[in-house]
Amino acid sequence: MNNDSKLRIIPLGGLEQIGMNMTVFETKDSILVVDCGLSFPDDEMLGIDLVIPDITYLKENADKIKGIVITHGHEDHIGAIPYVLKEVKAPIYATKLTMGLIEAKLKEHNMLEIVTRKVVKFGQIISLSDFRVEFIKTNHSIADATAFAIYTPVGTIIHTGDFKIDYTPVYGEPIDLQRFGELGKKGVLALMSDSTNAAKTGFTMSERTVGRTFDNIFAENTTRRIIIATFASNVDRVQQIINSACKYNRKVVVEGRSMVNIINVAGELGYLNIPDGTLIETEQMKNYTDEQIVLITTGSQGESMAALSRMAASLHRKVTIMPGDLVVFSSTPIPGNEKSVSRVINELAMKGAKVIFQEAHVSGHACEEELKLIYALTKPKYAIPVHGEYRHLMANRDIAEAMGVNKENTFIMSTGDVLELDEESGAITGKVQAGPVFVDGLGVGDVGNIVLRDRQNLAENGIIIVVLTFEKYTNNLLAGPDIVTRGFVYVRESESLIEETRTIVMDALEQCQSKNITDWSRIKATVKDSIADYLWKNLKRSPVILPIITEVE
Amino acid sequence: MNNDSKLRIIPLGGLEQIGMNMTVFETKDSILVVDCGLSFPDDEMLGIDLVIPDITYLKENADKIKGIVITHGHEDHIGAIPYVLKEVKAPIYATKLTMGLIEAKLKEHNMLEIVTRKVVKFGQIISLSDFRVEFIKTNHSIADATAFAIYTPVGTIIHTGDFKIDYTPVYGEPIDLQRFGELGKKGVLALMSDSTNAAKTGFTMSERTVGRTFDNIFAENTTRRIIIATFASNVDRVQQIINSACKYNRKVVVEGRSMVNIINVAGELGYLNIPDGTLIETEQMKNYTDEQIVLITTGSQGESMAALSRMAASLHRKVTIMPGDLVVFSSTPIPGNEKSVSRVINELAMKGAKVIFQEAHVSGHACEEELKLIYALTKPKYAIPVHGEYRHLMANRDIAEAMGVNKENTFIMSTGDVLELDEESGAITGKVQAGPVFVDGLGVGDVGNIVLRDRQNLAENGIIIVVLTFEKYTNNLLAGPDIVTRGFVYVRESESLIEETRTIVMDALEQCQSKNITDWSRIKATVKDSIADYLWKNLKRSPVILPIITEVE
Repeated sequence: MNNDSKLRIIPLGGLEQIGMNMTVFETKDSILVVDCGLSFPDDEMLGIDLVIPDITYLKENADKIKGIVITHGHEDHIGAIPYVLKEVKAPIYATKLTMGLIEAKLKEHNMLEIVTRKVVKFGQIISLSDFRVEFIKTNHSIADATAFAIYTPVGTIIHTGDFKIDYTPVYGEPIDLQRFGELGKKGVLALMSDSTNAAKTGFTMSERTVGRTFDNIFAENTTRRIIIATFASNVDRVQQIINSACKYNRKVVVEGRSMVNIINVAGELGYLNIPDGTLIETEQMKNYTDEQIVLITTGSQGESMAALSRMAASLHRKVTIMPGDLVVFSSTPIPGNEKSVSRVINELAMKGAKVIFQEAHVSGHACEEELKLIYALTKPKYAIPVHGEYRHLMANRDIAEAMGVNKENTFIMSTGDVLELDEESGAITGKVQAGPVFVDGLGVGDVGNIVLRDRQNLAENGIIIVVLTFEKYTNNLLAGPDIVTRGFVYVRESESLIEETRTIVMDALEQCQSKNITDWSRIKATVKDSIADYLWKNLKRSPVILPIITEVE
Repeated sequence: MNNDSKLRIIPLGGLEQIGMNMTVFETKDSILVVDCGLSFPDDEMLGIDLVIPDITYLKENADKIKGIVITHGHEDHIGAIPYVLKEVKAPIYATKLTMGLIEAKLKEHNMLEIVTRKVVKFGQIISLSDFRVEFIKTNHSIADATAFAIYTPVGTIIHTGDFKIDYTPVYGEPIDLQRFGELGKKGVLALMSDSTNAAKTGFTMSERTVGRTFDNIFAENTTRRIIIATFASNVDRVQQIINSACKYNRKVVVEGRSMVNIINVAGELGYLNIPDGTLIETEQMKNYTDEQIVLITTGSQGESMAALSRMAASLHRKVTIMPGDLVVFSSTPIPGNEKSVSRVINELAMKGAKVIFQEAHVSGHACEEELKLIYALTKPKYAIPVHGEYRHLMANRDIAEAMGVNKENTFIMSTGDVLELDEESGAITGKVQAGPVFVDGLGVGDVGNIVLRDRQNLAENGIIIVVLTFEKYTNNLLAGPDIVTRGFVYVRESESLIEETRTIVMDALEQCQSKNITDWSRIKATVKDSIADYLWKNLKRSPVILPIITEVE
């Protein structure tokens, strides 16, 4: 951290994982932060609601932070903003729709008043001390996504954010390829580009192709009620559903809290064009026939609390799936969600619905050929693959090398790595504290790996609690052993097992007495080991065993 | 259950799910059981090792059971045999390899002596009281798979088992399509066919095409060590790896307990042809160069304890992944395993291995066109789709209808449904007790839904235990409240929270005293509610709260 003339790039998240995107750019006096996202918990993060980046490094350098620039409005790029801004102060810069979504989030956290915000237009350059940041139009699965040209003392860094190349986007302009080319001609020091689809060959299809698919689906299913599940944030997708609905004379109903929220924000800001009289309330559905309705809903990932999942499970208060309904998943399952999606499809099929899966979807991320194009336009000296698991980063690196970047000038970074760069050379020179911080309810960071390991153990085999009441000074047993279990066995049918466990505890206590063991921790350990032995031999199970001793005079 | 002239078909598992296959065929005096499989636990079945069918119905009719016939040696068809045969007595009939795998299983359970077994050849017919069962050669992802023609008093039922049509299988003959045709000409009452791939169009490729892929991979990677992960039970796949190894002068190393076991069984029974000197021990690898080695291993599903996963995580005692190694996943992830597989691929990539994923694999299940062929050959009156989730069963039903089976003669059954059939008509007429029984360690059925719900609650938020010691008769607090938590918060950093909880408990106790509440269950409820309120308001969390009262004179 000592070469002050170099630029330091420090990812605090987003590498070797999908989500939690946040990158620090640092000079001697200034820090610029790109994105501020969360990630969703893995299966083993039991009970965790959200995961945000550890920003210890930012807190330690709080006075240097000049601003946070945001590439687009997805949770994995904006979701940690309220948590981060409770810890450090910094102005936020984003395009209009992105800022609209950030503001909705800040409002929820009662932070709207205290955060400085600035909406930036494409082509505009903002000055943040040692950095100047230019916003460059890109395409993605949400409108108003931007790349950044970051002008630093050592040269120009281009950060693509999440992007794809869409020559015929639904809203707004195609990606500004000319500007990428112009910057490349002038000289780009480093390209940080989206690796999500780097391992996929070819070119991602235009969002507009999904509109044609919707038209076909509407044309072929004129007598059915149509229900379409998609990502709430994919405003262009929603627009295309509305377009098809208008073309085929259907009213549009919106279900799911996040879907309603985003449609409100996008509508107010002019990102959605909804002809008057198109939207109706769910309650009004009864005034229309099936063929006059299309319902847009959340739940395309099989999330158990989302509207579609509740409809499929007959738990939705307002919408009942009927035989003949057509349900379209306009999405692809995010890895890990396949089974939940499959369960929802089965439930829908059982209710007699026809299900269309994965046909009406395109990705929002650039494939191999698109990445090649960006490398061809920018011709960077250094390539720093971002956004993706390790194998995606590796695939992006291979593309960079194929496009002429020297092998030693490509950097596969881990979260917390410090990359020092100047015109001459670049190297990973150190590591800062970084990693995931768990949010559980209102608690941020109070659940760590020890607590998670306990939860895992409890989840696997349950818990046996043994309460012993000792007489003070003598350790004579005054009451107990009381044995209480949760998540272990069905107690009413296992009385003899519990009785036997009690005997084991009494034997262990006698053993302690005969050996003159009076130390509570040793008594507890003896009790615990005896029970553990017994249960493993007889049941091959290892519940959490918790002896508790209380003392009475 | 009262129409004695009809045949009753009762699936005890395998419907609306993948796995746990078991079907009862019943006449007035006889019961025939087809398959006896287990399934693996879903994510929400915390701590459960295996799931087996509830066989209450078989126990109640134990004297009628004439035999159990098995279609093939996969766990979801043979895995419950030891558990079932501890409860009911019945002879087992299977083809040679299938029986070899069953015997290995019985041996593990020390049951080899007490189970009557008979190896059956293709074309052979066994008589089991009211039933005669003919074994008909099919193809699948394990050798020696069979379909059954079940001759019953009301007509011939064909049960395909899991199958595909492979005109060029690696071991043995193609499926005996002639016999299916011959039986069809004579008249087939009902076809019960594999629905797993019914929603997939086209035709499943021959297993032999994977051999060609292996040859190409070996030819293109002559300097690398090759590691191939596949299903242990896919003996033909293993054979093809061995074939390529011999062709390219590599020695074969086998890793993973189940892989070693199955190769032993299959080798002894003549289902594997391994030239002398081909197999070497893992320890001997050091005597060879990378280009002389191919390692066959378990772990193609990313299972955390399997050999490949341990290699990827540097936990394997004998094999270390080296830069340049080529790892081939000769498999496709079973739904739910995508994330684990992805994690293993990332770990392998980090160690510098090249990974080939999903190229070297074909399915073992018939697609749409194969099912059409079987319907065309057998022309059944009734179609009963088996093996699959609801949407797969529905897809199979659509195929049956397209192939001329009357809509009212297709039956989508649920586990436990009783289908009564004769030449004239068929109908689902009732339901017997059926469903999943959980195996946790050595315990069978002692963990039920209540225990699982407790485990889920413990997993989400942990547990808070409050121990109160009361004086007998007076309910005066002699000791405590002692507060112990597990999986809730990191205690050392949350002392004030615990302290506050203690105060809440004391307040609750005072409240009880002032209201003259002496009933322990009401005191416990008051304590619990107070803590729950406090934690929800302050942390938005709901741990399991467990007040325990002990009493001292």
